[in-house]
Amino acid sequence: MLGRTYEAQDCSVARALEVVGERWSLLIIRDALFAGSTRFRDFQQALGVASNVLSARLEGFVRAGLMERRPAEGHDAYVLTAKGRDLQPVVMALADWGDKWAAPYGPPVAFEHAGCGGGARQETYCAVCAEDLGPGDVVAVRRAGSGTAGPAGRRAAE
Amino acid sequence: MLGRTYEAQDCSVARALEVVGERWSLLIIRDALFAGSTRFRDFQQALGVASNVLSARLEGFVRAGLMERRPAEGHDAYVLTAKGRDLQPVVMALADWGDKWAAPYGPPVAFEHAGCGGGARQETYCAVCAEDLGPGDVVAVRRAGSGTAGPAGRRAAE
Repeated sequence: MLGRTYEAQDCSVARALEVVGERWSLLIIRDALFAGSTRFRDFQQALGVASNVLSARLEGFVRAGLMERRPAEGHDAYVLTAKGRDLQPVVMALADWGDKWAAPYGPPVAFEHAGCGGGARQETYCAVCAEDLGPGDVVAVRRAGSGTAGPAGRRAAE
Repeated sequence: MLGRTYEAQDCSVARALEVVGERWSLLIIRDALFAGSTRFRDFQQALGVASNVLSARLEGFVRAGLMERRPAEGHDAYVLTAKGRDLQPVVMALADWGDKWAAPYGPPVAFEHAGCGGGARQETYCAVCAEDLGPGDVVAVRRAGSGTAGPAGRRAAE
């Protein structure tokens, strides 16, 4: 966990990154979501990450409620909770970006609907006019009563 | 930039995180996308990040093609390119997760369609059967001809 590195930021993006913003974190979540990894050695073999780093990440995920540690046959299993599984759109959005901008040999992985095999797509749309929204079509509006981006605002919101 | 920290990973998520996976990176992109920040001091005042870190991130973004540095009146402006703007779904997905799981006082910011003011939503759906897809409904399938997750596979794909 990054702790409260971004404490001055009254922002859900900052809150999310405090939980999954460290190196390797989202790749561990990716493997839990899409490779079925649950065992320490599953993650380690797939990622090649140092044991102490992997251990710190998994324990941090348990503390943050993203994973549950369950005793299994001769080992602990780290299983995503609903809170952890809800990171799927984050992982898919990163994959979409990487497929478009950083995959010179084409996307290495396709996301598919488990039910029918169709391609899984993410889109941003307007809940009122239903228009597809691209970059430039979306604005961020601070909600009334919420704090500002500064530390004072954050305190006021607490 | 993380360089090739995740080189052994033949994965678009890893490629994306090599570009925006460092501390502060996605908050800088957030401010460029949604706060209209372009100047060094805009980012610094909003984020409270150390100058050397901010400088390294902005220069890294220019090198990676996420931003262009343009001379402006008395300062340089850092302006997102199409490649940088395409990170909007990543930022929105992180915000959605943070709103749901880490915003005890409610979402501090709302995303709206600039055109009509309606709420901007992200969803994952099946391109074939059109079903809304939640966690558990999506599987990742390695494409034929792509490498494996290991270094050898990565080399084979290059």
